[in-house]
Amino acid sequence: MPPFDVPEGDPFGPHNLPYGVFSPAGSTERRVGVRLGDHVLDAGAAAAALGSPYVSLLAQPTLNPLLAAGRTAWSDVRRALTAWVTVPSHRSAIEPLFHPLSSVTLHLPFEVADYVDFYASENHARNVGQIFRPDAEDSLTPNWKHLPIGYHGRSGTVVVSDTDVVRPSGQRKGPGDPAPVFGPSIRLDIEAEVGFVVGVPSEQGRPVALDDFREHVFGLCLLNDWSARDIQAWEYVPLGPFLGKSFATSVSAWITPLEALDHARVAPPERTYPLLPYLDDSAPGIEPGGYDLRISVAINGHVVSEPPFSTMYWTAAQQLAHMTVNGASLRTGDLYGSGTVSGPEEAQRGCLLELTWNGRDPLELPDGKRAFLEDGDVVTMSAWAPGADGGRVGLGEVSGRVVSV
Amino acid sequence: MPPFDVPEGDPFGPHNLPYGVFSPAGSTERRVGVRLGDHVLDAGAAAAALGSPYVSLLAQPTLNPLLAAGRTAWSDVRRALTAWVTVPSHRSAIEPLFHPLSSVTLHLPFEVADYVDFYASENHARNVGQIFRPDAEDSLTPNWKHLPIGYHGRSGTVVVSDTDVVRPSGQRKGPGDPAPVFGPSIRLDIEAEVGFVVGVPSEQGRPVALDDFREHVFGLCLLNDWSARDIQAWEYVPLGPFLGKSFATSVSAWITPLEALDHARVAPPERTYPLLPYLDDSAPGIEPGGYDLRISVAINGHVVSEPPFSTMYWTAAQQLAHMTVNGASLRTGDLYGSGTVSGPEEAQRGCLLELTWNGRDPLELPDGKRAFLEDGDVVTMSAWAPGADGGRVGLGEVSGRVVSV
Repeated sequence: MPPFDVPEGDPFGPHNLPYGVFSPAGSTERRVGVRLGDHVLDAGAAAAALGSPYVSLLAQPTLNPLLAAGRTAWSDVRRALTAWVTVPSHRSAIEPLFHPLSSVTLHLPFEVADYVDFYASENHARNVGQIFRPDAEDSLTPNWKHLPIGYHGRSGTVVVSDTDVVRPSGQRKGPGDPAPVFGPSIRLDIEAEVGFVVGVPSEQGRPVALDDFREHVFGLCLLNDWSARDIQAWEYVPLGPFLGKSFATSVSAWITPLEALDHARVAPPERTYPLLPYLDDSAPGIEPGGYDLRISVAINGHVVSEPPFSTMYWTAAQQLAHMTVNGASLRTGDLYGSGTVSGPEEAQRGCLLELTWNGRDPLELPDGKRAFLEDGDVVTMSAWAPGADGGRVGLGEVSGRVVSV
Repeated sequence: MPPFDVPEGDPFGPHNLPYGVFSPAGSTERRVGVRLGDHVLDAGAAAAALGSPYVSLLAQPTLNPLLAAGRTAWSDVRRALTAWVTVPSHRSAIEPLFHPLSSVTLHLPFEVADYVDFYASENHARNVGQIFRPDAEDSLTPNWKHLPIGYHGRSGTVVVSDTDVVRPSGQRKGPGDPAPVFGPSIRLDIEAEVGFVVGVPSEQGRPVALDDFREHVFGLCLLNDWSARDIQAWEYVPLGPFLGKSFATSVSAWITPLEALDHARVAPPERTYPLLPYLDDSAPGIEPGGYDLRISVAINGHVVSEPPFSTMYWTAAQQLAHMTVNGASLRTGDLYGSGTVSGPEEAQRGCLLELTWNGRDPLELPDGKRAFLEDGDVVTMSAWAPGADGGRVGLGEVSGRVVSV
């Protein structure tokens, strides 16, 4: 039976139902919303109207209570929501609780606990290696194929899609500069990534096994890991990226539950070396950990890249197992980024550093050349995944405009 | 006039008054406490008993509301507390609200937002450089004297003093190993640091100036940045430390307000190169940014090092200015570590990596040799700072025991 007023084949149909947090027009109150087509259902109000026990999870200003509730609750709530927006007898109760998407304000949908960023695309890592270490024997560092390299980022500067990003200032030092100079970044870049949102916490000292991924991770979003390459290049040896990244990280306003992506699960690429047991997803009984997400990156509406997430060497399940194997605990709201998604083709590279080969080959956009981002540029990432019966599951887009400092 | 029952010269006398969060014996309720000698004053109950307007800041389960209240409130509350514990007419109301320190449970005193760790001791950085890059022309990386190098750590695994630390497992690869091996760390280390606690937030896109340090930072604590050197060595190129650090970071249960340390302020070491204006604390009108804190590190009660904080090249004010110069915002509860404190003398080195020169020269302890930590080892850091009239201001100790995985 058809969903309420959503055209057949809409990537945000009732097979999708991503979660967000919105304020209705004219209000600053934050409420959990579920996207259906180009509308947002006030999920807490719907639960209340139908006398659902899930009102305590849904009538909330953030997704955190739902995230913490665990896999069984996630399934139950999703099943209930699906019924609410498709069963005709609910129509009269539910229909008044929809808001046009264009009328609401969308907020950061959860309180970010820790934020970790990985580096899991082999194509990206090889390109970066060739750009920065052209004389190295191998463009990958020796550890790259043995563990998913990651580092902690700044959770306090994670912002929701459509938040302006102020161009960061900082130190940079070119090869010819006798001393570092200070000023606004002149090599401001993007990184197209997928972000994974942890729901269920874990205990300090207790690693999370590879096959417990879906017990802990609720869903995913698109993520733009804004990067100031000039600041990063001068600061990052020996302790890694810091101010080149910490000024802003944008996430989509919609969190897609993993359950909506069951048709998009794929096996990851073949491994070059055998993996240590805690990372070995070729072992019997381990579910395929990849996701077939088709990302599109546009600058000022012009598509510049289409990175395929299915090409990632390390999966989100491996990243979670690695991140906790030392006993580090998880909290509800932990966010981790996949790392820049780059496919093997030039037009599949997920950042300008690669797309322009560190500025050597600027992109030709309708409004001029781009080596790196200019003030006023709007970067938008969108994506879809295969659904059932040839349909599509849409991911919420992540967009942001660069503004001058 | 004498404080209630605290001996003259006690480093935790009424000139100190650090803040913590405790549960009285037999209770799990969390309350803000103020340490006086070997007692804890229930600060919220005291405020209520005396009809103080600060009850809303003090009758709380964490320090966060007080931290967020800002510098004027910090001074006012401190002045009130000083009166409560010294003016004889308050004695009958206040005395019943003290708990023996030995009877209470101490908790992590604030909710940690972001955690950043710096690398600000020149002696430490030079020793590490010589150990790991013996052939390098300069033991410091080229950026070291131009900016305070830092990186983000895991805030979810910051634990309060006396929390056991589970030995982390992870990948390591020795020079002779054909592939990485997995197991409990065999090079578990400490790092003696000072942690700074941010109270007042800042806005994204707006740097915090060097001389606004005391408007934002409430106080400091001792911090042990536990480090698994074998895990760190294999993982850290190119994105910095991750699992080698993220399993645990211990902080003292007591946060010393900066106001208690006014007599300990000292000028930092002379700078080798002129600094960019946002870091230049030699400019007129900038207050001295160093603190003369005398740290002591003991393993199983045996003192192994006495690192002097006054030798740090970069100050906490410079670290704050740097951390925000790209527009990264601050939140109440942000914590940043100074980096390992090492003085110029061998007996002033703040980690075993340096003290044993990467295991080459094990320490001789009463209970045997130590290259790195063994299961059951208890590491305790304590410190004091000069107070008025030759007195001392004690810092709360940070202690932790290593337990096997």
